Amino acid sequence: MSILSRIIFRLLLMTTEMTLTLPTTQSSLKCWPGLIEAYRNYLPVSESTPVITLQEGNTPLIPAPTIAEIIGKQVQVYLKYDGLNPTGSFKDRGMTMAISKAKEEGSKAVICASTGNTSAAAAAYARRAGMKAFVLIPDGYVALGKLAQALLYGAEVLAIKGNFDKALNIVREMAEHYPITLVNSVNPYRLEGQKTAAFEVVDALGDAPDWLCIPVGNAGNISAYWMGFCQYHAVGKCSRLPQMMGFQAAGAAPLVFGYPVENPETLATAIRIGNPASWDFAVAAKDASKGSFNAVTDAEILDAYRLLASGEGIFCEPASAASVAGLLKVKDQVPEGIKIVCVLTGNGLKDPDTAITHSNNKFKAGIAPEMEAVATVMGF
Amino acid sequence: MSILSRIIFRLLLMTTEMTLTLPTTQSSLKCWPGLIEAYRNYLPVSESTPVITLQEGNTPLIPAPTIAEIIGKQVQVYLKYDGLNPTGSFKDRGMTMAISKAKEEGSKAVICASTGNTSAAAAAYARRAGMKAFVLIPDGYVALGKLAQALLYGAEVLAIKGNFDKALNIVREMAEHYPITLVNSVNPYRLEGQKTAAFEVVDALGDAPDWLCIPVGNAGNISAYWMGFCQYHAVGKCSRLPQMMGFQAAGAAPLVFGYPVENPETLATAIRIGNPASWDFAVAAKDASKGSFNAVTDAEILDAYRLLASGEGIFCEPASAASVAGLLKVKDQVPEGIKIVCVLTGNGLKDPDTAITHSNNKFKAGIAPEMEAVATVMGF
Repeated sequence: MSILSRIIFRLLLMTTEMTLTLPTTQSSLKCWPGLIEAYRNYLPVSESTPVITLQEGNTPLIPAPTIAEIIGKQVQVYLKYDGLNPTGSFKDRGMTMAISKAKEEGSKAVICASTGNTSAAAAAYARRAGMKAFVLIPDGYVALGKLAQALLYGAEVLAIKGNFDKALNIVREMAEHYPITLVNSVNPYRLEGQKTAAFEVVDALGDAPDWLCIPVGNAGNISAYWMGFCQYHAVGKCSRLPQMMGFQAAGAAPLVFGYPVENPETLATAIRIGNPASWDFAVAAKDASKGSFNAVTDAEILDAYRLLASGEGIFCEPASAASVAGLLKVKDQVPEGIKIVCVLTGNGLKDPDTAITHSNNKFKAGIAPEMEAVATVMGF
Repeated sequence: MSILSRIIFRLLLMTTEMTLTLPTTQSSLKCWPGLIEAYRNYLPVSESTPVITLQEGNTPLIPAPTIAEIIGKQVQVYLKYDGLNPTGSFKDRGMTMAISKAKEEGSKAVICASTGNTSAAAAAYARRAGMKAFVLIPDGYVALGKLAQALLYGAEVLAIKGNFDKALNIVREMAEHYPITLVNSVNPYRLEGQKTAAFEVVDALGDAPDWLCIPVGNAGNISAYWMGFCQYHAVGKCSRLPQMMGFQAAGAAPLVFGYPVENPETLATAIRIGNPASWDFAVAAKDASKGSFNAVTDAEILDAYRLLASGEGIFCEPASAASVAGLLKVKDQVPEGIKIVCVLTGNGLKDPDTAITHSNNKFKAGIAPEMEAVATVMGF
């Protein structure tokens, strides 16, 4: 190593040490242990439950000043960015519970029917637990990033000549007839894990928000959030309950219409569901909280998706943007000065194709490699 | 809502409340404010610095029992999974600093030359700060997820007819001649932000590890970690310093060879660099810590990449896996019972193509939609 580089390095260290003249008031920070350990007292686990964790949960609650400004009325808007869970979606919350309980029960393999986030979460947690993971999907399109995950985690992905409902029926049958645990949303531990997102929101804000805006597909997450808020309220962790504002894609809005949708259609694939599994729970949560269900079009979802990225710096899945699209759609109904949390369920990296196709394309190629040429293109 | 659904919902809430018989010993959890607020005393910021944050940092330090078992000797292995930063890589740590300081200085736009993670981070933080973001890239291949991000965040991506070095020269010139802040690795605030990863490792473990295994491309991150460990050591936050074990891709290993590599080649694109910007710092860190540099082949990187996913449940970028590939390569040199941290710099979702191409493909299509047919394929 040259003498010069030694000198540079010494100087660098000295510079950083100079910033230490301030007292170190910051208490030592703790490592998040994953949501089961963090919320053990609120979950159906015991000392003998093997905790299978990737340190999921503890996701950021990020202020959204750009969206708040659009709404006006001095509201505060926060984004619960669950795309920063270990496999990139809120499904990890339920899966740490489902797989830990499966392991406790001695299961050696898990199965699910899923075209997306559930399969990735199931595969990751099952493999971490040393279990086999099987994923049944309908033959046909599955978003690239999602299938990539399940495969790399080592899941066996089986495509059947049939639709999603058929796949779901088969995995239910399989779980009855073979020593395999079903980890689809009918697994009762999934919602238990997911409710911890509500705990985190309350822990971060010091109380429940006034409104909770959330994308609704299979309706498990809105049910889980409501369970979480009610449970925290029951023990005095929050002084109030939020209004549950559920938003569905216009082409897949059975809860808005009041009847199932035969052929649900939306580019927000994670909420493209015509007959939600947690229908009754979601309606109960909406009614009890004096909330509402509304539908947003794909165009509105894409507008919110771009706004989140270019206005707030947050890249989420298209389905996640339904919560913000919905909030903007009903903005005239927003009371003065309230606190609003919008749930972003998944990471935008799950679906790069939509980002490429639907960004306000500012890509320019073939520029001469000279400063002046670049400056001209940039508008200088 | 039907009476049945009301009953179901009541029962569900009762069940969850039953779990509350345990005392709620968990103290209320705090919301992570982002790394500048968390480590303000250790960073060159003042009260007047506008903090531009997406609550980056505070990433999981995940035990890796499968890898520890392969090494044996009762070692403990942890993975610092920086892929769970807001834009999916460790670059967010440096960018929150660089953009906050640019904003403080009154800058209206930032520019960088980057084919990947830097451009995504620069775009996200610049847009959050209300600044324009320009990204210069060479005409040619850029991993899909990475370009998608910068574009969706609203960066203007400009492809020049020239290579990466030419792009870097142009952005340096631009920053000199126009009112634009350069946020490439020459920006001095980048390493300041990145060093906080070392703080987090110490905060989580209670002391520094014995070994820090880290992928080395441009060599900024190994330098930043070393700065962080030294700074924490100087104020007594840790009792020792780790040995810095840097791993480069065999086709792009200038620090191993001791001279620049003209045409670096590796599928681990994030470390495909022939002449690292932080060369001298990295060598100083390696020497001072009694560490070493070693090279790993692409095949070894891919083995580690698959092992991380299917053995530990963690999906990282190929470049990230170089730290684990390296550790496994030098496992005979690992002392008995030591504590090792391997740095995983980026999220695997950044590069779905590699996952699809290099998973141990367990995808089977065209299965008849019947339980028996599925069971047969599954081996029952």
